[in-house]
Amino acid sequence: MDDYHAQRKQLIADDRALRIDHAAQKEISEEERRADKMLRHIRSSEAVSVWSATQPLKHLHGSQQLFPGMAFLTARETIVGTKLFDILSKMPKGGLLHAHHAAMVRVDVLLKLALSQPAIHIRVPAVLCSATIGTALPEFRGLSRAEWTTHPSITDQRYAPDTWVPIQNARSNFSHALGGPEGFDRWFTNIMTINPSEAYGTHNTTGEIWKKFQSTFIAAQGLIFFEPISTEYIREFFYSSIEDGISYVEVRMAFHQKYMTGADGERNVPHRVWLQLYDHILKEVKADMKQQGREDEFVGSKIIYSILRIITPEEIEWYLEDCIAMKQEFPHLISGFDLIGHEDTLLPLIYYAESLLRFVERQKELGIEIPFMFHAGETLGDGTVADMNLYDAILLGTKRIGHGFSLIKHPKLMQICRERDICVEVCPISNEILRLTGSMPMHPLPAVMNQGVHVALCSDDPAVFGNMGLTFDFYQVFVASEVNNLTTLHELVWDSIRYSALSHEEKECAFEKLERRWNIFVRYILDTYGGAA
Amino acid sequence: MDDYHAQRKQLIADDRALRIDHAAQKEISEEERRADKMLRHIRSSEAVSVWSATQPLKHLHGSQQLFPGMAFLTARETIVGTKLFDILSKMPKGGLLHAHHAAMVRVDVLLKLALSQPAIHIRVPAVLCSATIGTALPEFRGLSRAEWTTHPSITDQRYAPDTWVPIQNARSNFSHALGGPEGFDRWFTNIMTINPSEAYGTHNTTGEIWKKFQSTFIAAQGLIFFEPISTEYIREFFYSSIEDGISYVEVRMAFHQKYMTGADGERNVPHRVWLQLYDHILKEVKADMKQQGREDEFVGSKIIYSILRIITPEEIEWYLEDCIAMKQEFPHLISGFDLIGHEDTLLPLIYYAESLLRFVERQKELGIEIPFMFHAGETLGDGTVADMNLYDAILLGTKRIGHGFSLIKHPKLMQICRERDICVEVCPISNEILRLTGSMPMHPLPAVMNQGVHVALCSDDPAVFGNMGLTFDFYQVFVASEVNNLTTLHELVWDSIRYSALSHEEKECAFEKLERRWNIFVRYILDTYGGAA
Repeated sequence: MDDYHAQRKQLIADDRALRIDHAAQKEISEEERRADKMLRHIRSSEAVSVWSATQPLKHLHGSQQLFPGMAFLTARETIVGTKLFDILSKMPKGGLLHAHHAAMVRVDVLLKLALSQPAIHIRVPAVLCSATIGTALPEFRGLSRAEWTTHPSITDQRYAPDTWVPIQNARSNFSHALGGPEGFDRWFTNIMTINPSEAYGTHNTTGEIWKKFQSTFIAAQGLIFFEPISTEYIREFFYSSIEDGISYVEVRMAFHQKYMTGADGERNVPHRVWLQLYDHILKEVKADMKQQGREDEFVGSKIIYSILRIITPEEIEWYLEDCIAMKQEFPHLISGFDLIGHEDTLLPLIYYAESLLRFVERQKELGIEIPFMFHAGETLGDGTVADMNLYDAILLGTKRIGHGFSLIKHPKLMQICRERDICVEVCPISNEILRLTGSMPMHPLPAVMNQGVHVALCSDDPAVFGNMGLTFDFYQVFVASEVNNLTTLHELVWDSIRYSALSHEEKECAFEKLERRWNIFVRYILDTYGGAA
Repeated sequence: MDDYHAQRKQLIADDRALRIDHAAQKEISEEERRADKMLRHIRSSEAVSVWSATQPLKHLHGSQQLFPGMAFLTARETIVGTKLFDILSKMPKGGLLHAHHAAMVRVDVLLKLALSQPAIHIRVPAVLCSATIGTALPEFRGLSRAEWTTHPSITDQRYAPDTWVPIQNARSNFSHALGGPEGFDRWFTNIMTINPSEAYGTHNTTGEIWKKFQSTFIAAQGLIFFEPISTEYIREFFYSSIEDGISYVEVRMAFHQKYMTGADGERNVPHRVWLQLYDHILKEVKADMKQQGREDEFVGSKIIYSILRIITPEEIEWYLEDCIAMKQEFPHLISGFDLIGHEDTLLPLIYYAESLLRFVERQKELGIEIPFMFHAGETLGDGTVADMNLYDAILLGTKRIGHGFSLIKHPKLMQICRERDICVEVCPISNEILRLTGSMPMHPLPAVMNQGVHVALCSDDPAVFGNMGLTFDFYQVFVASEVNNLTTLHELVWDSIRYSALSHEEKECAFEKLERRWNIFVRYILDTYGGAA
């Protein structure tokens, strides 16, 4: 049996040798070793004390079993009460590498921003009542002074469909039958987020849930792309990320619309002004953090120029040129290019390949570099157009892969990712809510990590999913595997800087800051939970 | 772009080069090529005509979208109405390599067999009424003549809990309030099967659903291990398998109980008599098939000696010796050894490793061979005891892996499976109902196949899941991938013989028969659906 045990130990070691945190497992300090033990102890204790309970099943007799890594929208309240969540919320997260600008700020904050702007009006295609509230999608717009109205309500029978009402009025006079102003807030939240009945009931396929998902962006754009809100929105995005321990954000901003609506209600704010504003806020926030003595907590932000995969190859040319122009004017901000939107139903990368290849040539001529950061394989399909995007992403030389959910099905592409050091931006909660996986234990992430492909955990669209920051995604991943430990977390955090678009010098600086904060984090575990292990 | 397209073609080819049906893709006949085109045309047509419908959602307002490969228990009725199901039901399936003897016969047939035996009595721990019917688990037993009773009912208030009632009486006098005799039949079905409310509602974890799953076996054992039923049960198992196009069955039989109950109601029928009976029926069925001129349709059956992973290493010794004795007496029947039961909660392979290693040595001394066919990795766990069973299964030299659901997480073990040609018995519908995957498109099977590990599709426990035969499992797999084609099906069918425990000569003979039937199948597609493509 000694022989057998020796062979077994070797086999396990060989099996884990490809794992992304393999090398790092040996390099940890004594303090980290103790903190890791506590962390794993808390995970296994809470698996019993928290996750073995049951909760009533709303729509069926009986109750359902809670479990670690279960569907996020029904688990959220339980998660925030755990010790493990407390610990992970204190962890420095490094970079957030996959996040869509239009879904980064909490819905209640967005509503507050909207209500603070008298220019913001709302309209609906039908008088809002119990029969229409479930389907009517509102439109928001910052109107020019001349267009402002004094219409009182969108729930009054006298409301003329599709006429603009000041958002303040619409809220104040929201009918009692629909819950008054609080009813308005609930409705606003339902419009802007995915709720559990949708994700786990009525919208049971990726196709169905994407319809709801897209509608949240359609509704929000009139607010987010109104300049006075836009700037506060970005500020809020930076500060809330910092609060969660994120020190760098590389955000996908959709430049599909050529103009944003200005404070004057005119749609006349061009892309370069968006970037000027972004840059300005970024500098303000950095200066503020420095002044607070919290320089280690924020190293900056860059933007991945993104457009929707619905346009023609002719139309993309304008955007590619625009992207180059923006890169030339804001070299420190523009860090990549991507095509976004539902891969299963919209256009594949191959459709744009010729333009994209020319784009690469143009960059060489101009001596600039805008790496591709393509979404690819965000699908359950096997051999479908969306799955095949992975081939094109890699052939076109993508630096990272957004989602890559179906990557595990492609041994050659997995090998290329290892060889060319292509990192996969994995969005665990997004994948689960958008119905690619039933729960975290069903997610292919452990297979990808064990097969040696590096990943960065990302939140994707936290305003819609409710997974603000990165703590929730780290939580779901950490509880769904016995192999994950403190070193795994460390590796994921470091990888999020390593695979970022930061320059070599910026990375060195970011690692230095991260190292200091990591040590504080480890001490926090030891000091706070030292008695528990 | 020509260059790009050439590179793309090469990359896809390289990526698929490891795939299990890769070599076979080039070797197909012109007829197969046409049949394949039809088959894929029907799949894509029905994806729209059948699977784009919605169905009302029982417990929530609104409806749910149907989709190919969706949860089996809610999809079954739709599946059986499709052309693709008709075609696959005509396909010769080769061998069924992972199936549990105690869950192989349709529940209505088992009930008929039970009702035909006056010795069969039933008892329940409480008078059956609307309050108890959901929880009271009945016990069945073939009693000795002297023990027979004339008690009238298990639903009458005068029923003394735990007293035996003839099953015929219990059914005839089942209270009107509970639906009378048809109510009895429905109750019996509920006891013996998993229903959609359980699988997709109240029993939402593998742990919960296994409790219900195990209870079906506990209830059924009193019937299945009553000799007069047992023989008819096996006969039914063979014939129903044949009707579905299965020509060979390698069944896991639980030898945990040392004696079966004989016709006389005494628990005195030892294992060797079980095998004599099995052998006898097998010969009868083969002779009958020959007489009907249907020799090609059935090549035989073997048994994998199985015990529950709940016993001590001391207790296992008796079974290992018994297994050897059975192999010596029935060398053509005993084809392997396995430990069965819920891996997440019962004992791991490592617990028995020492005994199992000695068992291998004993076989060498005796010049016999009883290959291990271990269940391993039937779990969502990552690094858990159940997941670690994969290391031991492989170190102990398993010939095939039962389930191997978590195998994809282990690159070294995947490599060993390729090198040593270890086949994985994948049970798609079982995995889905037992909550390892939400639907077929979420199942890791495509990743396993694409990474070059050979698989045999299996039904596991069709009496409990309702996936009788292999057509349903082939259906779910075929519709969930665009890569799968007729050659994939051919490869899966041939692999089910290739990785069976049949001898080299038996395999040659089985392949010959399969070849003839495959050609008939291809002609069936062309003749029946020729107009559709």
